[in-house]
Amino acid sequence: MNERVKTPEGRPYYKEIGTRPIRPDGVEKVTGSARFGDDFTLPGTLVGKILRSPHPHARLISVDTSNAKKIAGVKAIVTGSDFPDQPFAYTGPAVLERNMWHVTRNVIAREKVLYEGHAVAAVAAVDEKTASAALQAIAVEYEILPHVTTLDEALAPDAVLLFEDMITRGVEPAPEKPTNIARRANYEKGQIDTAWSSADLIVERSYETKPVHQGYIEPHACLAHYHPDGQADLYTSSQGHFQMRALTATLTGMRLTDIRAIPAEIGGGFGGKTVVYLEPLAMMLSKMSGFPVRMKMTRSEVFKASGPAAGTKARIKLGAKKNGTLVAAEVEMYYEAGAFPGSPFVNGVLCCVAPYTIPNVRLTGWDVVANRPKVAAYRAPGSPQSNFAFESTVDIVCKKLGLDPIAFRKMNAVQVGAELLGGRQLNHEGYLQLLEATERHPQYATELGPNQGRGFAAGYWPNAGGESGATVYVNADGTVNIATGSPDIGGSRASMAQMTAETLGISYDRVRSAVNDTTSVPFTHVTGGSRVTFATGKAVVAACETVIADLRARAAKIWDVDVDAVDWREGAAHPSSSNVGDFDPLTLGDLAARATETGGPIGSSGALNATGHAPGFSAALCDVEVDPETGHVKIIRFTVAQDAGVAIHPSYVEGQMQGAVVQGIGWALSEEYIYGPDGRLQNHGFLDYRMPVASDLPMIDPIVVEVPNPDHPFGVKGVAEAGMVTAMASVANAVADAVDRRMTSLPISPPKLAKEIAAGKAAM
Amino acid sequence: MNERVKTPEGRPYYKEIGTRPIRPDGVEKVTGSARFGDDFTLPGTLVGKILRSPHPHARLISVDTSNAKKIAGVKAIVTGSDFPDQPFAYTGPAVLERNMWHVTRNVIAREKVLYEGHAVAAVAAVDEKTASAALQAIAVEYEILPHVTTLDEALAPDAVLLFEDMITRGVEPAPEKPTNIARRANYEKGQIDTAWSSADLIVERSYETKPVHQGYIEPHACLAHYHPDGQADLYTSSQGHFQMRALTATLTGMRLTDIRAIPAEIGGGFGGKTVVYLEPLAMMLSKMSGFPVRMKMTRSEVFKASGPAAGTKARIKLGAKKNGTLVAAEVEMYYEAGAFPGSPFVNGVLCCVAPYTIPNVRLTGWDVVANRPKVAAYRAPGSPQSNFAFESTVDIVCKKLGLDPIAFRKMNAVQVGAELLGGRQLNHEGYLQLLEATERHPQYATELGPNQGRGFAAGYWPNAGGESGATVYVNADGTVNIATGSPDIGGSRASMAQMTAETLGISYDRVRSAVNDTTSVPFTHVTGGSRVTFATGKAVVAACETVIADLRARAAKIWDVDVDAVDWREGAAHPSSSNVGDFDPLTLGDLAARATETGGPIGSSGALNATGHAPGFSAALCDVEVDPETGHVKIIRFTVAQDAGVAIHPSYVEGQMQGAVVQGIGWALSEEYIYGPDGRLQNHGFLDYRMPVASDLPMIDPIVVEVPNPDHPFGVKGVAEAGMVTAMASVANAVADAVDRRMTSLPISPPKLAKEIAAGKAAM
Repeated sequence: MNERVKTPEGRPYYKEIGTRPIRPDGVEKVTGSARFGDDFTLPGTLVGKILRSPHPHARLISVDTSNAKKIAGVKAIVTGSDFPDQPFAYTGPAVLERNMWHVTRNVIAREKVLYEGHAVAAVAAVDEKTASAALQAIAVEYEILPHVTTLDEALAPDAVLLFEDMITRGVEPAPEKPTNIARRANYEKGQIDTAWSSADLIVERSYETKPVHQGYIEPHACLAHYHPDGQADLYTSSQGHFQMRALTATLTGMRLTDIRAIPAEIGGGFGGKTVVYLEPLAMMLSKMSGFPVRMKMTRSEVFKASGPAAGTKARIKLGAKKNGTLVAAEVEMYYEAGAFPGSPFVNGVLCCVAPYTIPNVRLTGWDVVANRPKVAAYRAPGSPQSNFAFESTVDIVCKKLGLDPIAFRKMNAVQVGAELLGGRQLNHEGYLQLLEATERHPQYATELGPNQGRGFAAGYWPNAGGESGATVYVNADGTVNIATGSPDIGGSRASMAQMTAETLGISYDRVRSAVNDTTSVPFTHVTGGSRVTFATGKAVVAACETVIADLRARAAKIWDVDVDAVDWREGAAHPSSSNVGDFDPLTLGDLAARATETGGPIGSSGALNATGHAPGFSAALCDVEVDPETGHVKIIRFTVAQDAGVAIHPSYVEGQMQGAVVQGIGWALSEEYIYGPDGRLQNHGFLDYRMPVASDLPMIDPIVVEVPNPDHPFGVKGVAEAGMVTAMASVANAVADAVDRRMTSLPISPPKLAKEIAAGKAAM
Repeated sequence: MNERVKTPEGRPYYKEIGTRPIRPDGVEKVTGSARFGDDFTLPGTLVGKILRSPHPHARLISVDTSNAKKIAGVKAIVTGSDFPDQPFAYTGPAVLERNMWHVTRNVIAREKVLYEGHAVAAVAAVDEKTASAALQAIAVEYEILPHVTTLDEALAPDAVLLFEDMITRGVEPAPEKPTNIARRANYEKGQIDTAWSSADLIVERSYETKPVHQGYIEPHACLAHYHPDGQADLYTSSQGHFQMRALTATLTGMRLTDIRAIPAEIGGGFGGKTVVYLEPLAMMLSKMSGFPVRMKMTRSEVFKASGPAAGTKARIKLGAKKNGTLVAAEVEMYYEAGAFPGSPFVNGVLCCVAPYTIPNVRLTGWDVVANRPKVAAYRAPGSPQSNFAFESTVDIVCKKLGLDPIAFRKMNAVQVGAELLGGRQLNHEGYLQLLEATERHPQYATELGPNQGRGFAAGYWPNAGGESGATVYVNADGTVNIATGSPDIGGSRASMAQMTAETLGISYDRVRSAVNDTTSVPFTHVTGGSRVTFATGKAVVAACETVIADLRARAAKIWDVDVDAVDWREGAAHPSSSNVGDFDPLTLGDLAARATETGGPIGSSGALNATGHAPGFSAALCDVEVDPETGHVKIIRFTVAQDAGVAIHPSYVEGQMQGAVVQGIGWALSEEYIYGPDGRLQNHGFLDYRMPVASDLPMIDPIVVEVPNPDHPFGVKGVAEAGMVTAMASVANAVADAVDRRMTSLPISPPKLAKEIAAGKAAM
């Protein structure tokens, strides 16, 4: 269901934008010829494998590779000491903004291993078997240390410390005693401590969520080839080959220009492939061995050693007037960062209050390390966890006050022009429209049966802009090639081609869209933050506009008139008025055929740091049916509403929203990392780590609301993440509605829910 | 020996231009990891092979592939009728300027086979053996026709015709009777018929040269992958992947944008890889089979079915005054085009007179077809053959008049400002300077021993400009990536990096230079015509200048001053005067690190149709020693002089000159296609086709004269071809000097020369 909300000015009729053409990468993917990270090979390619720590926490006394090196066919072995050490710093240049001190130690351990699966050494050998034998022959001496795998353990006063000298930042005065808390974030507005007295109702609850994995189908894989002159090729499946280039270069002591990073297709990332694991190891092994080195993770390695989403604990306190007006909100959340600081706790606490106008607010977030894999981004990183806690509490308030949940959100909705906590001003319409669209959706009026419940949640994700680039070249036959540096996760090749066709005024099938390597497209930041269609799209349109200016100039040259006397519309140059002269239009094809005589090849490269991105609001409406005996929750209807700005390719937009909801449902009902008391992950495979499959799900109905973003040439806002933010809370609220029991701990797995129902615990 | 001639204005001191840095492709090539045409593979790749005609001339009655198709493992078979027919036309758009009617029939025969080795069918099968079996199972019914393999046979009045309706073009009135002559070119100046009476000496001689092959080490090879949605990838080793894209698209009925042409390294081309043979067949086989198809030629196929240089017959008549002033010249030449029209006969006749001021001239060239492979470009196509004939005749004039050969050329030298025949004005200095440099070279004063002789020749090649493009991107760490669409044959990756470094004011080692595919670099014409360092270099410099303008604007933004107040020099932005303010320079690295805040990624794409290319003059000085018994000619000293304009990377310039001379020596002394009376090539391998090897040669001494080209930012003229133009004539003149016998037929092979000496034929 698409609901296109017109701005007061209306908007132009688009020919290509808003259509659903065939995806350029579709045939290659369904016929199996698309090349993913593990599909590249070069003559002499070695197999790279990683020795990983079996211990969740231990000091590395020694790593003896001498026996392994003697095995015939073993070509290189690296350990942490083979990599340049990185200065400790919490910030850095934009491209390298991650803390390299942490990143290098996460890629390969140095002083300590900090989680089960932490890389200790990597080998390159002529085949898999030899590489495995080499791993077995490496003798590692560990001094085993006590470990902490839960927030409670990590926060205990006498907890063992991952970093013995880590003083919590963001607390004034600085604490004297080191802890496992890396940082505190604190935001306040109004007079929170005195505001509670003006509330008619105060609700305070605690919640928890477990770490979950993005669950991308394609494990991490890469191929590195370091040449003896210091130049290297890096085939990498990632959400940003420029990012992989930067991280690999920094960690191996190379320069950016030394690495040609070639993008592979990517079998899912969802944030988890913005960070680096294998590439620096493969590069160093290639450097040492002189051969190309290919590495890939097993699924077990993906679970144990790549970055899941943070587990959290939350305490939410809300104060409201009888009529539902919110007067105060307090949010305190702990995010489990895994082995190194850097959980998305700031995003988390800021996002949950963003949809509301609340005069008095205090947000406190804590970044906590524990002996688990370092967390990575996962679709709206940090926001789903806090949304679950906050929207559950809002739901309690609505139920207690007997208010309609959508009416409640509308009444308390953030207003355009408001200063959001964290420093952003809300400049874009759209949130109210999507609340209203959800309210009108037939699901909202559908009657519920026995054991059924309905839950609603609203949510926010900031989206992103940032640096992107594109090239646009017009071929002699009037076809057009465009290339960007954005790995295509969600259909960006198609949407870039549509924006190109629309801008130039030609048909979609005349545009071929590619993702190219780091040597010939401008720097482009990761595919993440719902930024690509917005930011890379802006770069594409900017490049097309340069091309149009050039086409107009060439037409002017041919007609011997001033360039201002030439308009560009419907894919052709036209005289701007009848005074200019009696000229037949010159189409893009006409001008392409005459490029040689009018100045040579036609094309342009565009790059920018895109600003003006609009926030991503979403709303979720979930109907469930609970089996009171088993505690099994069946999703029977699900509607998700999101303001896309303008949906360039509506099928992709819908797909993003549907996929996001499915991931949120998994998080809500079945997914969790299960660690034993030994600090070892027990469910490191898809048999035991339960993701939703098609038979678990109804068709998810997306409402694509379209309130154009005036800061993008085609009104794009960004749609890939916000849809997940509200899914968990809507499921939890639906379960509460169905069983009159409030589940405050995710996942709402059957045994947990059955136990709760059996205990007859009160709903509120 | 480098002799840098200063222009009157002098020239700037260069930091990178004129140095000899390590080549970016060197390590990959010497370690064997560079990927040439046959080094690419994709899963499921099939082997493509070609069935070739054993007959030099036959009508194709039928090609029955039914039995071959039944062989297990045979996935596709194509014949001429599977390709769209092409309209007959002699001209077309610049990119597709070759006659597609001819090209399609040369790639695969349609009505007739026209030479031994002409492709009749192509198969794709799971392996080599199956493909070979399929070729054997194809039943071809030929109606064998008489054939013509020499110019004399082709020109005979009753000759069998390759094209029964071909009327010679360029003759007024048009002849009524079809012949094997495709076209005549005729240029006249002055009053040639009456001019002879003013000459004191008239010399008229006839000459012939044989077809020779470029002899590149790497046979033609490619890999095509056609996807079911009509998009395709084409890995091709060629002198122009944009050209291969265009030719393949046209011959297979695809659009330019459907093909992503990926350049391989190229193991030599010398003009022979500007044309297409395998790519359309591989593409069509891939389309029909659904699998990637790799094809490569054997060396025998390269000789039989790729394009050698034309064999020629020439008649030269020169008239001179006693003092050596040339008064009249008549040139008539026949160029053997092979199976289809299109020999470089126009270039040929125009080039030979270009170095001279001659008031009365008549040039006549004839393009003649015969039952041999269609000729292709070979290093200064057409010019070496005519130069051999013309400069041999000049040598006779000098000897008869007792004049020094260099003094004679200087006296009769073409003057700057002259209108050359064919319509070009000579606008660039340099020819006189290189004559003088040769005159000063020690070799010219070295005494000759018994059976030794010295030959001199001067020559001309127009060089070329044309369409080229490049991208330049500045990385966050201040390194720079450049990419072009010019396959790197002669070191262009290094010279492009040097020009980039010089323009930006940074060091060479901070620039990485790549050749990239057709999706993300601007259209670029072939690497040929000695155009790349000139034309693609201009595009690189243009892109760098756009980048510098942007860097200045960013510095102005940081300093909050007007952009005109910012200069760029020595790799940094500086205030243009002390009035601007007291600012420390901002280096490229400083600005790169701040790109995010100042507008995003820094870079540009530049493309142009380069004009202002300067002619390529050369001079050759050759000393030989002849064994009068065997007729063996030993080159004992060889000096080649050329005006490079400015030598960006002198080692490459010297290498081009040396390589060109070696190829000319082979043409002069040992190389030739030997056909039997059956019309079949007898020496289709390097054992029987005798190219010079290192032990045949002295070190070739290059004199790099540098008279900058004011129409190129660094003064480049182009050096890859002119060096070969004069080699053959200088060898022949040296032999004449040594043995007092004039060899008018190349190659001057030992049996031919021994016979001539034994016959005691007169020298003149």
